[in-house]
Amino acid sequence: MKAWEIRDAFGIDALQCGERPDPPLQHGQVRVRVRAVSLNYRDLVTVKGGVRTLRLPLIPCSDGAGEVVEVGPGVTRVKVGDRVAGIFFQKWLAGEITAAHFASALGGALDGMLADFVVLHEDGLVHFPPHMSYEEAATLPCAAVTAWQGLVTKGGIKAGDTILVQGTGGVSIFALQFGVMAGARVIITSSSDEKLARARQLGAWETVNYKTTPEWGKRVMELTAGEGVDHVVEVGGAGTLEQSFQATRVGGTISVIGVLTGFTGQIDPYPVLRKGLRLHGIYVGSREMFEAMNKALAIHRTRPVIDRVFSFAETQAALRYLESAAHFGKIVITV
Amino acid sequence: MKAWEIRDAFGIDALQCGERPDPPLQHGQVRVRVRAVSLNYRDLVTVKGGVRTLRLPLIPCSDGAGEVVEVGPGVTRVKVGDRVAGIFFQKWLAGEITAAHFASALGGALDGMLADFVVLHEDGLVHFPPHMSYEEAATLPCAAVTAWQGLVTKGGIKAGDTILVQGTGGVSIFALQFGVMAGARVIITSSSDEKLARARQLGAWETVNYKTTPEWGKRVMELTAGEGVDHVVEVGGAGTLEQSFQATRVGGTISVIGVLTGFTGQIDPYPVLRKGLRLHGIYVGSREMFEAMNKALAIHRTRPVIDRVFSFAETQAALRYLESAAHFGKIVITV
Amino acid sequence: MKAWEIRDAFGIDALQCGERPDPPLQHGQVRVRVRAVSLNYRDLVTVKGGVRTLRLPLIPCSDGAGEVVEVGPGVTRVKVGDRVAGIFFQKWLAGEITAAHFASALGGALDGMLADFVVLHEDGLVHFPPHMSYEEAATLPCAAVTAWQGLVTKGGIKAGDTILVQGTGGVSIFALQFGVMAGARVIITSSSDEKLARARQLGAWETVNYKTTPEWGKRVMELTAGEGVDHVVEVGGAGTLEQSFQATRVGGTISVIGVLTGFTGQIDPYPVLRKGLRLHGIYVGSREMFEAMNKALAIHRTRPVIDRVFSFAETQAALRYLESAAHFGKIVITV
Amino acid sequence: MKAWEIRDAFGIDALQCGERPDPPLQHGQVRVRVRAVSLNYRDLVTVKGGVRTLRLPLIPCSDGAGEVVEVGPGVTRVKVGDRVAGIFFQKWLAGEITAAHFASALGGALDGMLADFVVLHEDGLVHFPPHMSYEEAATLPCAAVTAWQGLVTKGGIKAGDTILVQGTGGVSIFALQFGVMAGARVIITSSSDEKLARARQLGAWETVNYKTTPEWGKRVMELTAGEGVDHVVEVGGAGTLEQSFQATRVGGTISVIGVLTGFTGQIDPYPVLRKGLRLHGIYVGSREMFEAMNKALAIHRTRPVIDRVFSFAETQAALRYLESAAHFGKIVITV
Repeated sequence: MKAWEIRDAFGIDALQCGERPDPPLQHGQVRVRVRAVSLNYRDLVTVKGGVRTLRLPLIPCSDGAGEVVEVGPGVTRVKVGDRVAGIFFQKWLAGEITAAHFASALGGALDGMLADFVVLHEDGLVHFPPHMSYEEAATLPCAAVTAWQGLVTKGGIKAGDTILVQGTGGVSIFALQFGVMAGARVIITSSSDEKLARARQLGAWETVNYKTTPEWGKRVMELTAGEGVDHVVEVGGAGTLEQSFQATRVGGTISVIGVLTGFTGQIDPYPVLRKGLRLHGIYVGSREMFEAMNKALAIHRTRPVIDRVFSFAETQAALRYLESAAHFGKIVITV
Repeated sequence: MKAWEIRDAFGIDALQCGERPDPPLQHGQVRVRVRAVSLNYRDLVTVKGGVRTLRLPLIPCSDGAGEVVEVGPGVTRVKVGDRVAGIFFQKWLAGEITAAHFASALGGALDGMLADFVVLHEDGLVHFPPHMSYEEAATLPCAAVTAWQGLVTKGGIKAGDTILVQGTGGVSIFALQFGVMAGARVIITSSSDEKLARARQLGAWETVNYKTTPEWGKRVMELTAGEGVDHVVEVGGAGTLEQSFQATRVGGTISVIGVLTGFTGQIDPYPVLRKGLRLHGIYVGSREMFEAMNKALAIHRTRPVIDRVFSFAETQAALRYLESAAHFGKIVITV
Repeated sequence: MKAWEIRDAFGIDALQCGERPDPPLQHGQVRVRVRAVSLNYRDLVTVKGGVRTLRLPLIPCSDGAGEVVEVGPGVTRVKVGDRVAGIFFQKWLAGEITAAHFASALGGALDGMLADFVVLHEDGLVHFPPHMSYEEAATLPCAAVTAWQGLVTKGGIKAGDTILVQGTGGVSIFALQFGVMAGARVIITSSSDEKLARARQLGAWETVNYKTTPEWGKRVMELTAGEGVDHVVEVGGAGTLEQSFQATRVGGTISVIGVLTGFTGQIDPYPVLRKGLRLHGIYVGSREMFEAMNKALAIHRTRPVIDRVFSFAETQAALRYLESAAHFGKIVITV
Repeated sequence: MKAWEIRDAFGIDALQCGERPDPPLQHGQVRVRVRAVSLNYRDLVTVKGGVRTLRLPLIPCSDGAGEVVEVGPGVTRVKVGDRVAGIFFQKWLAGEITAAHFASALGGALDGMLADFVVLHEDGLVHFPPHMSYEEAATLPCAAVTAWQGLVTKGGIKAGDTILVQGTGGVSIFALQFGVMAGARVIITSSSDEKLARARQLGAWETVNYKTTPEWGKRVMELTAGEGVDHVVEVGGAGTLEQSFQATRVGGTISVIGVLTGFTGQIDPYPVLRKGLRLHGIYVGSREMFEAMNKALAIHRTRPVIDRVFSFAETQAALRYLESAAHFGKIVITV
């Protein structure tokens, strides 16, 4: 098998492509011919050395889709020829998250999907919606499941809700699609009017340019007649929480799913108390959530929004493009 | 004020139209010029004497919409000219149902809406969605709120779910609309292929004629690839529960909202246990639910499905039409 | 290994004890020296041929506890010497129940625990509370987990609630203990005043002899000042549901966990609707529930109530004793 | 009527005691002879001018209990002679919190309970548990309901959970009592070993002196075998959140109920995401929650912990004592 690896140094330039022996299949294991991989911000952090306690060498990237080419003894969930995607936490099949699940993250605790072949346990795979290509399916495991857990599993959004989505990265665009699908109104922010226009085409109800309207929390209040939104999909972290607190209605919910603006900041937690807010931290999700989401995607024949597709050889260029934050939706690598 | 009353005898023919004095407004009370009333099966049962312990004379009918024409001292929630609908249980404003709420049902424990003017406490009113006519708004208080509580508040339906709706009466058609709005697939049953065709136009995914397919539970299983539906809106009671048990997936939910087939029957409750089903009895809903529903209806500019509109003078004909069960959606009386 | 088996005929007398070869361990498998087994009503039904589609020969009994004596390759959850119990559905680790879990029930779809040695996957085991003996731990997998799912996981009981428990079998006595532990008041029924007196010693607040008070639903209403209980643990099925409907408060919950009175009966489902009841069918539970329960049992150093202990050779006598319904709590077989 | 008032200046010394005319009762109103008032930190902030947009003169204090001495027309919930307590938000009867409820807070938006007689709407009163004195009942409306909403209504604590309670103020001691009542283990922190010893007498499982153990988050991890607690009752705000994040298990819950350490601080929200935490802001609670809590208190005959009782004339001394933070439990004023 061929794979990109973090070997002994960090950084996009230090990433190396090489050969590894093909391991034999143990009881319950499945060999998948990877056909596409998608990138997440976390993969960039990993490659650049931002994650402590990685065991090297490591194959990065959590998200991939491909075809089952061989099954080990005892396998019953999939068969050769099935089109499948890996799940982010290989051991988080259902129920609540526990510390034990962390040790099974692809492209982190375990080797990831940036390879032409991978071996995974059958429990760590899902069948993706039949109308999707491998490129589309590869966008689901991290970003889409995160948006689904935040809005649907934990958030319990319902028709008539108003949702605020920050930015136009992978999670945010999936959140926009899920919000529209569930009968909610979605407000989206971006620093680019062009991206906001594209978001409207995907069904966004209102848009706010946070560059020209830095006090976007106040603007969201105006858009909602002074009431605030029911749900915020918060990807910024310390740098955006204050505006999110302001934009949320009394009793509303904030899904904390990213810290793109950095880790620490001067935060006043008082609005959480005074407005009776609920914050929940969303760390991807379980296979049970993934499969519920796939049902919704299949019924609605939803197409994930792919910004650009790179070849396997162009992996480093793909990571640099992600770093530029110029994208709208997902960045995919074909294998 | 002019009103239809159950005086000293039951039956559609015994219903009498007469004059009552206009009561003065007390603290917190509001006078509403009723413009439209909608009928529910329960109103028919009431008129025909099927409800024990009614105090006569009684003005029947829980559902009405109209215009505020006068407000008493201390009123702040509405003002003269507002377009409002009454809520079914005048005292169930929010939270869980309690026995105390029962004593505040319009057209039952209290006089109802089948009059040209009514006096209600301001807490017992909601503003209805601006795009609706009085006729449309009059359909909401009982049937729509029931469907909303069953599917949304208690049921927690989500995009990708499959829902089974029985028949094409008022609650069922609202359930169809809410299911579609929430991104679910809806299967609907009827004894009339023509009604099923209309249901498809409203967004039904699949239909089953229960006359030509009496084993519709089995048919629903086939339609769902042997899995069963996530949620059944059960309006039949003893006569349909068995098929509903069969049609529901392991771990699925049944909203018990009607007993149209009669009260008692030979029922085997074992499938509840074996399939881990959840049944919840739905008795209309609170003002909090009504207002959440109105947000969804307003955003989607949903139009309630009205089968036929009768004049106030034709009230008895309207009840007879309801009795015939020929309708699709709601029957309305203009006042 | 030595095991009791249903071979080619049903009935307690037809049960046979014999030798089976010891299978080698596969990846992830564990060999357990069974030290104690407990009986459930379902085991009796199985032995007597009441379950369709069993593959014979079958080792019956879902519940057992023992000591890990050997671990296969890749095992990390347990080690040799660990004291463990099996979980009822070997594949239901967490999350919601699905049809797929059914095919992994011990003593049903799979061979059970009535043997001196068993081989299970490491995922199908839990460590039981340290203060318990093997006999005590053997009582947990079916009865205790069922009571826990009904009252805690699904029921969400809280301090101040009032709970009605039917009878003094295994599930009911665990429900009594969990209710008391959670700060609730527990009312218990039995046909024996002596058993009711013992239930009071375990913390029951009130008792009702359903033989001398056949209208026990009414009696429960009196005990709760006309309000009804918050939660019923319903083990009777068709023959007791009517009284349970009567005993439950408006908006209350009924955990449907047994059908001891038989499968079919004349039931009027109208109270479900009129009182806004919630019924949920409880089919044992997941490993996640089992482990949460074990935490509670460990903190409270709860002792399961064992009625009588039989030797492995006396297995048939143990089943006959269960059949007599004379027990209070659990019947255990030492291996 | 006689009342303490904030008239035209802030500060404990500026508080004035005077006479007000007794207002006549309107429809639905009730006159209560106040017998005891309890103090909350929020009352101190109010008296000292820390709350914006108060309309003066204002009678402070949200919490009081007394006897119904007169009822207005239409009152049905209470009668003369009933022993009652006021609810914090007079309009929050049930369901979710909304912005509209804020305008009905006693001792804030509305005049409070620090008077010998008050007039409230019957909906704004609850009957308190019969075993309690007026002094004990006066401690319930703010502190006890806050602890109840956080742990029970929103938190859904269950037997076997481990709860961390910060400090020994009113909310914290109620949280300790509710935790024990619900079958949970409670860890409590304080800067005083003597207070910690008293907390153990009330049932605390473990204690941490945060003065001698400033890294108490780490200590809590040790006490829980590296797992962390299920639930934190967070009263400190910006100054304690970081340790609370550390002390909480993956997937655990933090009830944000106070900001005693001040409003703003350097906070890193990343652990919310990484550990999948849930934070909910708790702003007292509804009448529905108050009444559910009263059932639990009545069944368990719980006695609120009163640190010291002052006379009505000593009100300023009582506030100064609260300011000193020397108390353990609640400070009460008899009227």
